[in-house]
Amino acid sequence: MSGSVGLARVLEPAGVLPQAAWRLDASPEIGPDEVRIRVQRLNLDAASYRQLAQKHAGDGAAIRAEVLAIVGDRGKMHNPVTGSGGMLIGVVEEVGPESPLQVKPGDRVATLVSLTLTPLRITDGLRDWDGLGEQVPADGTAILFGRSIVGVLPDDMAPELALAVYDVCGAPALVDRVVRQYSAPTVLVLGGAGKSGSLSLAAAKRAGARTTAIVVSAAERDALQRTGLADEIAIADARNPVAVFDAAGANDITVVCVDVPGCEHGAILATAPGGTVIFFSMATSFSAAALGAEGLAADVTMLVGNGYVPGHAAFAVDLVRTVPAVRALFEARVAGD
Amino acid sequence: MSGSVGLARVLEPAGVLPQAAWRLDASPEIGPDEVRIRVQRLNLDAASYRQLAQKHAGDGAAIRAEVLAIVGDRGKMHNPVTGSGGMLIGVVEEVGPESPLQVKPGDRVATLVSLTLTPLRITDGLRDWDGLGEQVPADGTAILFGRSIVGVLPDDMAPELALAVYDVCGAPALVDRVVRQYSAPTVLVLGGAGKSGSLSLAAAKRAGARTTAIVVSAAERDALQRTGLADEIAIADARNPVAVFDAAGANDITVVCVDVPGCEHGAILATAPGGTVIFFSMATSFSAAALGAEGLAADVTMLVGNGYVPGHAAFAVDLVRTVPAVRALFEARVAGD
Repeated sequence: MSGSVGLARVLEPAGVLPQAAWRLDASPEIGPDEVRIRVQRLNLDAASYRQLAQKHAGDGAAIRAEVLAIVGDRGKMHNPVTGSGGMLIGVVEEVGPESPLQVKPGDRVATLVSLTLTPLRITDGLRDWDGLGEQVPADGTAILFGRSIVGVLPDDMAPELALAVYDVCGAPALVDRVVRQYSAPTVLVLGGAGKSGSLSLAAAKRAGARTTAIVVSAAERDALQRTGLADEIAIADARNPVAVFDAAGANDITVVCVDVPGCEHGAILATAPGGTVIFFSMATSFSAAALGAEGLAADVTMLVGNGYVPGHAAFAVDLVRTVPAVRALFEARVAGD
Repeated sequence: MSGSVGLARVLEPAGVLPQAAWRLDASPEIGPDEVRIRVQRLNLDAASYRQLAQKHAGDGAAIRAEVLAIVGDRGKMHNPVTGSGGMLIGVVEEVGPESPLQVKPGDRVATLVSLTLTPLRITDGLRDWDGLGEQVPADGTAILFGRSIVGVLPDDMAPELALAVYDVCGAPALVDRVVRQYSAPTVLVLGGAGKSGSLSLAAAKRAGARTTAIVVSAAERDALQRTGLADEIAIADARNPVAVFDAAGANDITVVCVDVPGCEHGAILATAPGGTVIFFSMATSFSAAALGAEGLAADVTMLVGNGYVPGHAAFAVDLVRTVPAVRALFEARVAGD
């Protein structure tokens, strides 16, 4: 077990998992259950890049120097201020004999675990990056552990599109699983026009649910309406519990995809007794959810949105392939980024 | 709906639920679906009392003055620093004609929703409280909404014991529900010697599970061993994922009852694929849980421990009544407080 989660790569402090570590050993020699990837591009987490850009007032050279310093110091691209990382694209270079991952040398892959736990060495000084965006062309090596997640990039999608899908692929897979525990349920998605929101709607609809979306603006409503993913769409502030309930009533399943704090109580109030709330937003407050449900005497199951469900990457890619409206929505988002 | 959750009692800011409000209307006149309680005692949340005691260096008069000021300013005992409240004991004085709560005038009750959302007026200046403990004798009035939770105090238990049980009664009821979704599962409880931990072990065992407890010291191990609630007991630091896994292996269900930050990864690592982690600790970090499971490629269901399950108070009281070891453990804790 200990090898498979990367404990041997933790340099300090000892005894923690790689994500909690301050510094990892990023040397390119792999252990028997590890995989080495030749890195082609980093995709920095949006919050991390924003913090760096603000700190250096948009000075690309300074931003680049700080990314190099972080990776050099920590052995991983783990922004110490935001605590976030991102993901990367590369080509599989070597696969240890005991690796359980389904990849072979030459496969073009994206890592689906965070850069905050991925041993990373950069060897080109990031010379091809101007420091002015989240997409970072890079040369170097990254290590995957036995217990890791990696997605082979599909041939029929631009890497940017695949990455955008992989970034939120846990959501539709978990929505699918929960919807199938009910019989023809109603599903409410807070933030239905976003990436995880639209995929959640598509997964819910395919699994037989009736869908309602809450969005923040008329522009989002119109864009979502064209996709046909939501049977009902309402414009409301997801942070206002009364507004959410008035707009959506009580649903069997409520999915929170709005990345702002304060959406817990509205989600709970809009979920019927015996229903389930799935929190995918990283802005979710554990105590607001726990105390909120108790305070409302709400008999609802509340799930921490786990970013991993077996087969989640292939499931999300299949949704994008087979539902043209989802693909169009994602392609528009990728083009706008 | 809007009346039943107490919106009419919110003075500022408008449009939020009572718990999120800065100030409530605590006037004693009740609406048609409300209940008025004549308050006898407040039971301050431990974190809240500790903060007040530290701030005032144990000066009882100053602590009392601040509690009075908070209740006067906010219309509820909602500590603005810790965000926490507590619960209260009193006697039902008046029941609105449309109240769905199963109480009648004269019933001695404990409120099972937080003081952070309970309109409260204190009329005796807390003259019978020396400010030196969490138990606050008080006279005044409190209001319950339609959608609220209240427990009638059992005749065969001291109020202190009943309150201690009610304080954590959501845990055993939810553990019972989850255990029954598996067939003869293994259940690991982090913090098994505490109040919610021991009740969780008792509930798991009654529902047919094999139980393992992780505790922090030899004293806790010995106390728990005498109860027979755990089939296995290990001493380990719940914040050390590797230590937790080494001590407990992979379990079907893991219950987190340790009230310190950093227990998420150990709980996830010690849960088998297809298993469930129930987080009852209010120190749980949502993002540590979500990112941790993804980083470990852990296919586990993660539940926010909802403090409300229908019938939870009666369920917990019944466990204490029928399992002498649990009652002994609680009585020792209450005597030690």
